[in-house]
Amino acid sequence: MKLIIDKESLLFAVQIVQRAVSFKSPLPVLSGIKFSTYTDNLSDSVQLALSATDLEMSIQCILAAEIEELGSIILPARHIVELIRHLPNIPVILETSDGGAVLKYDRSEIFLNGFLVEEFPSLSFSTENPIVIVKGDSLKEIIRQVIFAVAKDENRPLFSGVLFMIKEDELEMVATDTHRLAWRRLRIEERIKESEVRGEADLPEGNGLSVIIPAKALLELSKIIDSTEESVRVCLTQNTIVFSTSYTCLTTRLLQGQYPDYQSVIPKEQETKVRLCTRKITESVERASLLTSDSSPVIKVSIDNNSMLISANSSAGYVNEEIPVSVEGPPVKIAFNVRYLSDILKVIDSKEVFIEFGGPLVPTLIRPSTSENYLTLLMPIKL
Amino acid sequence: MKLIIDKESLLFAVQIVQRAVSFKSPLPVLSGIKFSTYTDNLSDSVQLALSATDLEMSIQCILAAEIEELGSIILPARHIVELIRHLPNIPVILETSDGGAVLKYDRSEIFLNGFLVEEFPSLSFSTENPIVIVKGDSLKEIIRQVIFAVAKDENRPLFSGVLFMIKEDELEMVATDTHRLAWRRLRIEERIKESEVRGEADLPEGNGLSVIIPAKALLELSKIIDSTEESVRVCLTQNTIVFSTSYTCLTTRLLQGQYPDYQSVIPKEQETKVRLCTRKITESVERASLLTSDSSPVIKVSIDNNSMLISANSSAGYVNEEIPVSVEGPPVKIAFNVRYLSDILKVIDSKEVFIEFGGPLVPTLIRPSTSENYLTLLMPIKL
Repeated sequence: MKLIIDKESLLFAVQIVQRAVSFKSPLPVLSGIKFSTYTDNLSDSVQLALSATDLEMSIQCILAAEIEELGSIILPARHIVELIRHLPNIPVILETSDGGAVLKYDRSEIFLNGFLVEEFPSLSFSTENPIVIVKGDSLKEIIRQVIFAVAKDENRPLFSGVLFMIKEDELEMVATDTHRLAWRRLRIEERIKESEVRGEADLPEGNGLSVIIPAKALLELSKIIDSTEESVRVCLTQNTIVFSTSYTCLTTRLLQGQYPDYQSVIPKEQETKVRLCTRKITESVERASLLTSDSSPVIKVSIDNNSMLISANSSAGYVNEEIPVSVEGPPVKIAFNVRYLSDILKVIDSKEVFIEFGGPLVPTLIRPSTSENYLTLLMPIKL
Repeated sequence: MKLIIDKESLLFAVQIVQRAVSFKSPLPVLSGIKFSTYTDNLSDSVQLALSATDLEMSIQCILAAEIEELGSIILPARHIVELIRHLPNIPVILETSDGGAVLKYDRSEIFLNGFLVEEFPSLSFSTENPIVIVKGDSLKEIIRQVIFAVAKDENRPLFSGVLFMIKEDELEMVATDTHRLAWRRLRIEERIKESEVRGEADLPEGNGLSVIIPAKALLELSKIIDSTEESVRVCLTQNTIVFSTSYTCLTTRLLQGQYPDYQSVIPKEQETKVRLCTRKITESVERASLLTSDSSPVIKVSIDNNSMLISANSSAGYVNEEIPVSVEGPPVKIAFNVRYLSDILKVIDSKEVFIEFGGPLVPTLIRPSTSENYLTLLMPIKL
């Protein structure tokens, strides 16, 4: 392989694909990034493809380069990313040589040992028959709004994933670790005929599609989606989902299993309804969290007389916060894990927040005042 | 004590004094910040003084507040700084109560347990009889230019300090860990009569003043000096040095001992002299460092035919960098610790750098092309 490419494009691409590199795998080749020439059948042009995988998730990035010789090489991610970052901002020659590759720039050169190309797993990025096309910034937003609620421990693999559903012209995502839950709905712009997909992917019949995507892949996806409005195509195969833009593809294995019936948990009507300023409660909860202990991150909330009292104490002292609220319904005394409450408040972007309390054994519902398409639930703590 | 103060002033002050707080000391009270009312004898006004100490270094910050009752309290630094950071941006009431203090703001309040005031060491910040007054930004700059060269290990306490000298109308600072050395000279604007000082501080007679200041204190000093042009007064007592601006004082114990004769190490005339672009060599050394191993961070440098070759290799590969230079004198082949060389290049701000080589057993001299007031030395590595 021999090619000429400018430093900035190369840096952009390695920074994207390195997110799938596995530095901890017993297979050393997975700590590498694959550089290979790639023939686009449509345009019959030859481009450069970079790819990496941790066997769960894989990322590919295609970029234009002046290709002089076809070929491929696997280079160690840690070195190649840092080296490219430090190259002068000029065109660079990349040429395979002696089991590795030489980078030439200006009057200087770098040689890096490579991994055996045969040892790198073959990756497939099927971008045909998309089931849905979503705007990049919308996808980023909904990932951010649900992903905080997934389980962090690996004992319950299903809860470390996000439920991804397509129902007619809506996309829904749900995440929960059983202590809190986030649900988000998005109207989708372009919905591809279901029958086409079902034929290929053997998906469940009936009310749309429903798969469970590992949170890690969605998190990386949200980082590599450009914040421009570019569309993201979503394609399904039997065991994988592929997200692709014009130059980048991310694919991940799906989690197998039956996601719990989240709908039955969402309360229909709660006794006490409160509306208040999102910034005020966020700041009060933040201060209160500073006076909880790590072993007991609990804050108490009580609602009465159009005010919300938030209190916490630890060996260092105590805090009593009072916030004006509009209340509908009887007084409330309840307690929460302050970190969980804070996680939720951080992703609520509206000026005002609605909170509905159903009692100390029922999840509290928290949602932006401006949207019916987003809600979160938080289980109170028994005192 | 009872006072009213605005959040931003309070935050500014606690962020400065917390740099002297000791979280690791066996004396718990040193993890606190002292808040006390302070009567300025000159203006007869009462202000708020914040102070902290780790027994080596102490910082005090005086700020205007609406004082209603005199008094003092020691509050835990970790909590008070974070709490103040998160307060709403409004005036706050601070009032001692029950062995601690209450902060009141809006309709909310925080109580923090305090430490016993009697347990806090009494601190003295003598700002009378300054020996010199230096512009804040100049002081910041010279600290940055020498401090990287101090010894990081604590086995040689003298080398963990910076030699601080005043000679007629010049201030000099020197730092070395015996592998590298940095020397910086600054013309000073205002020099106070030596005799005055000597009477009080019992300093050595003769060619000016010379003390050794712990690097840690200078580092913190450079962080708290405003980058505005404010003047910093430097005062000496027998064992301490005090740096003060209009509202902040930092004092530190001096290191005792005989600093080595650094002047004898500075080579007068070297065989090979080289001039080259600072950015080019900095970037080349940075890339080369990526292909050295942690156990042997060595790069080779050779000068010949108006070019400098920089090379390094590790199990990952190798790099050969070539940079155009103007050379005077015979060819050179030499090797350096890449981290030490990189540290030096980072603090050279001129467009071009002068390097003078005397051979593999003599320190290499590196200095900006624009100034006679700054030089660094770097011992080569024997190959």
